[in-house]
Amino acid sequence: MARQNKSEPIKFKIEESIGVLSSSTNGWQKELNLVSWNDQPPKFDIRSWSPDHLKMGKGITFSNDEMNALKEIIQNAGL
Amino acid sequence: MARQNKSEPIKFKIEESIGVLSSSTNGWQKELNLVSWNDQPPKFDIRSWSPDHLKMGKGITFSNDEMNALKEIIQNAGL
Repeated sequence: MARQNKSEPIKFKIEESIGVLSSSTNGWQKELNLVSWNDQPPKFDIRSWSPDHLKMGKGITFSNDEMNALKEIIQNAGL
Repeated sequence: MARQNKSEPIKFKIEESIGVLSSSTNGWQKELNLVSWNDQPPKFDIRSWSPDHLKMGKGITFSNDEMNALKEIIQNAGL
C-alpha cells in the first residue's frame, strides 16, 4: 500500500451511515459509519463528525473481525 | 473540572478489562476496557495497548449512554 504523503489531505468517503451514538449541543455527532480512507475498501469507523461531515474528530476504525468481536464482547459482558 | 496541564502526563487506570477485539503480531491488542482518566469516573474505552499496558494508541471513549446506543445500533443493523 502506498504511504500517505504528509502534504496531501487524507481522502475519505462515508460509504454508509449506520447509526448515531450521541449528539453534542454544537451539532457534532459521534457516529458509526462505513468509511473508505484513501480509496481503500470501507472499514467500520466510530468518530465525531461536524454537522456537514466535512470535519472529523479522533476516532477508531474496525475490521469486520474486530466489529464481530466487539459485538460478542458487548453481548457476553451484558453491557 | 480542572484542565490538564500540558506539561503533566495523562493519568490513567484500567479499572476493568472487558474484552479483546484483536491482537497484532507485535503483541499490541485492541481492547474494550473501563478506564479512569485523571482520577475521573471510569468510561468505556476502545484503543490499542502495548502488552504491558503502559503504552497506548489512539482510541475513543464512550459514556454509558453511548455504549448502550452502540449496542442497539450493532444489533439493529444486523452487523
